[in-house]
Amino acid sequence: MNLKQLAKELNLSISTVSKALDDSHEISEKTKSKVLEAASKHNYTPNPYASGLRKKRSNTIGVIIPEVADNFFSLAINGIQSIAENKGYHLLIYLSHDKYENERRIVEDCANGRVDGVLISISAETISAEHLLRLQKENVPLVFFDRALDDFEAAKVLTNDFESGYLSAKHLIENGCKRPMFLSFSECLTMCENRANGFLAALDDFKISSNEIVPIMYCSRKEEESYKQIQDLCNSNDRPDGIVASVEKLAMQLYLVCQDSAVSIPNDLKVVAFSTVEIAPILNPSLTTITQSAFEMGRVAAENLFKGIESKNFNLNQQVVVIPSKLIKRQSTSRYK
Amino acid sequence: MNLKQLAKELNLSISTVSKALDDSHEISEKTKSKVLEAASKHNYTPNPYASGLRKKRSNTIGVIIPEVADNFFSLAINGIQSIAENKGYHLLIYLSHDKYENERRIVEDCANGRVDGVLISISAETISAEHLLRLQKENVPLVFFDRALDDFEAAKVLTNDFESGYLSAKHLIENGCKRPMFLSFSECLTMCENRANGFLAALDDFKISSNEIVPIMYCSRKEEESYKQIQDLCNSNDRPDGIVASVEKLAMQLYLVCQDSAVSIPNDLKVVAFSTVEIAPILNPSLTTITQSAFEMGRVAAENLFKGIESKNFNLNQQVVVIPSKLIKRQSTSRYK
Repeated sequence: MNLKQLAKELNLSISTVSKALDDSHEISEKTKSKVLEAASKHNYTPNPYASGLRKKRSNTIGVIIPEVADNFFSLAINGIQSIAENKGYHLLIYLSHDKYENERRIVEDCANGRVDGVLISISAETISAEHLLRLQKENVPLVFFDRALDDFEAAKVLTNDFESGYLSAKHLIENGCKRPMFLSFSECLTMCENRANGFLAALDDFKISSNEIVPIMYCSRKEEESYKQIQDLCNSNDRPDGIVASVEKLAMQLYLVCQDSAVSIPNDLKVVAFSTVEIAPILNPSLTTITQSAFEMGRVAAENLFKGIESKNFNLNQQVVVIPSKLIKRQSTSRYK
Repeated sequence: MNLKQLAKELNLSISTVSKALDDSHEISEKTKSKVLEAASKHNYTPNPYASGLRKKRSNTIGVIIPEVADNFFSLAINGIQSIAENKGYHLLIYLSHDKYENERRIVEDCANGRVDGVLISISAETISAEHLLRLQKENVPLVFFDRALDDFEAAKVLTNDFESGYLSAKHLIENGCKRPMFLSFSECLTMCENRANGFLAALDDFKISSNEIVPIMYCSRKEEESYKQIQDLCNSNDRPDGIVASVEKLAMQLYLVCQDSAVSIPNDLKVVAFSTVEIAPILNPSLTTITQSAFEMGRVAAENLFKGIESKNFNLNQQVVVIPSKLIKRQSTSRYK
């Protein structure tokens, strides 16, 4: 049974049946119930793409993230889903695997009518907004969450990265660290640079000399390579006595390396990580974290996106929300074990 | 620039231009290159839904899973993605949140032409295949992975759940446990029942009396409730001396409870968990796991699904693949700390 056959049986035009199924105000209640009854009798449900074309709505939002095997993003997706579900929307989840070229291709796809709006956390390689301009040109609403392009005017849901970087360094210094180091995972991402700059500002304020070496290590995004880098760092003569890991994955690698190399946390090395893992308390030792509100960031980003989709008068691009993270102190930074 | 305008400029029929863009064999190479050149000049890309309707292909596969904030599923998604990417396909990731009603709604949506094929890991409440029959009726290829319906003929990618359940109980008993218990998270799921039955078979073989009580605790899927159940269990007089957690989440809760209740793992209680966490070695104590090949299971499921999509002669429903899991022994089950 297709739309045409249904219309024929009801002796109505295709357009009338279609509008009735879309609950249009142009159609009388009487006609609507007649159409719905017949549709239900024949177990007819509209082809969503055909229906999307008629309504110019796909009822789908695109969520572009670097990686799904990461607690932050999986929690954020749950937050996004909590809003989308209520709106009867689907999520099209795309993974860029932190590569700009993948992201460009995905965004192009999203600009061609596949989705009604886009939530994006950019790849670690993304420095230009060219691909995103296309979305704005096609009037596809866009909201950044967590990782945004700094100088591109668009809606954003961020956290207080600079302040959190500052706080994590201050905490290490107050607990006795003299040579703290920051493990970065991207030279491009503003979010990561903000964390690093906050870290450096604290070192400055507390007069920690850096021996003319900037205490930042840029880690590879290839797992085996970053593991090797961290291994070399932990086994070197000038091993730092404190580390701030800019993302969860680096902290997990650091823990594995320390276990293998018999470096004791927190005695030899104290660790703070930007992380949303619920299991931080049961790690060996329990891990001090800068904990982001991942679910909440996803939820608010989706909420604003839907305002942008539903109302043309809503000035979406002006919406910049900052949801603060929290420092939670545990054993990995304690003065003595 | 739309298809019509492009056709007009080239002085060709819409159908010819469309076929040329789809690389149809009906169109000469000369015409194809003319069309592609013009399309590229005008930066024209086809609306994917309109194009999907013409080709009857959405170039999208639906992935229906209970939850994304779970290492098994996020790794499986990476495996699926590794295949889909090569095929130029998108993933539409749907979360059932372990509710049958959500799953039914999602499957219905998938049956209406939104996707070319479906990969599903069923919800913990799903006991009937009625909603899935609809997919087969609409000729939408379907592959189960990890969680499948036992008596429903369809392609499946599973692991050796019974054997793994047996192995985990045997390992606990050999390391001194006299009263092991199995933490289940679903009474419906065959996969979970197989793990439980393997566990019980080992108890039988090793003549562990169960005091007329079946040593299985069914845990709530609400996090606060299962936490409370585990807490009560750990603080009761007849606390078990060994636990097999059927899923990762229950093991993490058990660790948190033991930490709060000063129950020592492995001295008071030994723990094995079905889990894919890479961080098992750095938990306190390091966690003995039954480790599934999550990435590989996703990869193989996607590979078979594409065979089903691409070839009508491929007997997809006969494809049942079992990828074995591994017991990895760590401190949480050692005889003495």
